[in-house]
Amino acid sequence: MTHIHADSEGCASLTWPNGFRAYTGHGGMRDRGDDISIVASDRPSVSAAMFTRSRFAGPAVVLSRAHAAGQHLRALCTLAKNANVATGRQGEENAAEVVRRVAGILDIPEGEVLIGSTGVIGRPLPMDTIRAHLDETAQRGPAAFEAGPLDVARAMMTTDTRPKTAERTVGPARIVGVAKGVGMLEPDMATMLAYVFTDAALAPGDLDAALRGAVDKTFNCLSVDTDTSTSDTVALIANGAAGPVDLAAFSLALADLCLDLTTQLAGDGEGATKLLRVTVGRARDYRQAKRVAKTVVNSPLVKTAVHGADPNWGRVVMAIGKNSDDTDIEPNKVTVRFGPIEVYPREPEPDTLDQLVDIMRRDEVDITITLGLGDATATVYGCDLSEGYIRVNADYTS
Amino acid sequence: MTHIHADSEGCASLTWPNGFRAYTGHGGMRDRGDDISIVASDRPSVSAAMFTRSRFAGPAVVLSRAHAAGQHLRALCTLAKNANVATGRQGEENAAEVVRRVAGILDIPEGEVLIGSTGVIGRPLPMDTIRAHLDETAQRGPAAFEAGPLDVARAMMTTDTRPKTAERTVGPARIVGVAKGVGMLEPDMATMLAYVFTDAALAPGDLDAALRGAVDKTFNCLSVDTDTSTSDTVALIANGAAGPVDLAAFSLALADLCLDLTTQLAGDGEGATKLLRVTVGRARDYRQAKRVAKTVVNSPLVKTAVHGADPNWGRVVMAIGKNSDDTDIEPNKVTVRFGPIEVYPREPEPDTLDQLVDIMRRDEVDITITLGLGDATATVYGCDLSEGYIRVNADYTS
Repeated sequence: MTHIHADSEGCASLTWPNGFRAYTGHGGMRDRGDDISIVASDRPSVSAAMFTRSRFAGPAVVLSRAHAAGQHLRALCTLAKNANVATGRQGEENAAEVVRRVAGILDIPEGEVLIGSTGVIGRPLPMDTIRAHLDETAQRGPAAFEAGPLDVARAMMTTDTRPKTAERTVGPARIVGVAKGVGMLEPDMATMLAYVFTDAALAPGDLDAALRGAVDKTFNCLSVDTDTSTSDTVALIANGAAGPVDLAAFSLALADLCLDLTTQLAGDGEGATKLLRVTVGRARDYRQAKRVAKTVVNSPLVKTAVHGADPNWGRVVMAIGKNSDDTDIEPNKVTVRFGPIEVYPREPEPDTLDQLVDIMRRDEVDITITLGLGDATATVYGCDLSEGYIRVNADYTS
Repeated sequence: MTHIHADSEGCASLTWPNGFRAYTGHGGMRDRGDDISIVASDRPSVSAAMFTRSRFAGPAVVLSRAHAAGQHLRALCTLAKNANVATGRQGEENAAEVVRRVAGILDIPEGEVLIGSTGVIGRPLPMDTIRAHLDETAQRGPAAFEAGPLDVARAMMTTDTRPKTAERTVGPARIVGVAKGVGMLEPDMATMLAYVFTDAALAPGDLDAALRGAVDKTFNCLSVDTDTSTSDTVALIANGAAGPVDLAAFSLALADLCLDLTTQLAGDGEGATKLLRVTVGRARDYRQAKRVAKTVVNSPLVKTAVHGADPNWGRVVMAIGKNSDDTDIEPNKVTVRFGPIEVYPREPEPDTLDQLVDIMRRDEVDITITLGLGDATATVYGCDLSEGYIRVNADYTS
């Protein structure tokens, strides 16, 4: 599978698959610009979804998890800049009211609506402004639903610097995804917010399996800062408008699209200046490969070295070594490469040092490790750690 | 137990317990200033020691672990600015040669010498300069051993901004400790380098138990950046010069001294501007309390909020929630306080907001969490995450 990086990022001409339409509006959570979005299918659909494992999951996640269990989601509504998390009983009532109003606008059952909320934790939603805007949308009717994927991706942004969209085709069908997420981003079973829409016709069980398979190797291999959001949600809606497709081809295209969104998320991590891709090969099993790769991609010392374009492989072996779960790792079986150049155990030749610095200065840095224990491989996606991460986060709520 | 913070930091008049003497010298690893140190007992001693669990532990750790097993260490030698880790067969030979030479200078068996190395990973030791200086020391004999604890603490520093020393008395005996460590600092069974010397007379088994008990609640409750060093070592030598002491009193004084060094290490974390102390109470058991507290103290988003003096308690509940091992945590049983002020679930009254900002601006910030599940409590020690951490680490080897 090729690692396609953001090839459709910010594509204004991108359209929804057949039978989907969307609305974006200003609900008063962001100072300017849209912060409410709704994407809906014109026809009954099947769906699959995965959510954060946080013990502090917000009411939007709790409600959406219940609705997603029916596997017939038809609309996804998102509120940006306010996570509506740790907001008590009122927060639950507010989430339910937004769902009720969105279902009313679309004339579908409440149980077919998923709600996502993302932003500051612990602040009540500005319900007066949200109500006013949803009332206005209800009056405008279908005419209000003219937003494209790029508009929705923009309306979902918090500290994201770029909207994230991706598209793939499978036979007669298309798959379109939108995502947001920059910090508090080590998804545990799902990422911040990633929505995927397709007009392919698929059975709910197949859709669910395709999504789980894709998420395991993409969004769940992503870490910006080891912090798991309380709002992580990934949802996939298939409305069947394009008819049936080959399941294997669909699964591959879906995984490829999720990988595209994952690298866009990693490359736009808070303060990030580079995408960091760590591959661990010759591991005992896939879990070990992913665990070791995550330890390296999350090491603040590796991340700052990558930021400084410093080929400091000592920190990579330190990070491999700190995995107390992996007592079978033997230093003398391990190899480490930056790009194509081996740096451990054989130190790079002096005449490759310039090349090594060039590699470290690129926008995408690849670190490849082999453990010499088996045949499993995993790749994880992260970013460097810069002064920008500190600046963005030292003063976010004030 | 009071949390004594750095009360003896940088005390030039601090002396060794009876029967200990020390040497510091320039071995060519640091541009200027001493980088080799030796602390030795004049008489046979008993000892206890704990080491890193890193799979990439260096030859200094491997050799020292073997020597420490004898429980009769008498001298500790430290090389600063070079970790001698991942340096292959030559690295092992170099560590053994330094130990052999130090044993020769002191005229004691090699098995009674512990060697610590700390600094850059993957560079050969400058053996020519080290040899020259150890030869000179051998010629000078006992006269060379006139360094105090502060000299040794200084000679051990890498990116530390201050030397760390501490002292306690127990009956007729004294306990003196020196430590270093600023980054790559989430000790796993031991911290970067911390050495403790006492003239109390104690049995090896009692010494070992006292050290393990103290380390579990002090150095093992410390995390600057989640990265575990390949060189972590803590060692305790008791030479008995002051005669026997009450074991319980000794254990308490030792734990208090280790806590003192731990808060000095946390407060001098790379780029740190504040000490961050997180206490988790009413946990199911001590392990849960410590695990949750570590998740909070390690969260980059909590650390950056503390850096920005931002009372962003939403990030604290996020960090509590991300512990997938703790499925018994219920958001509605949890409370969070900054200093004495409750921020969750009851939001602070508007008239306490100024007080809250004052609390967040102090040099030491306390976050107290209760889980409402049991009676166990743990406190962990860390620091804020600042632009300084990035600057120190983005360009360390070059």
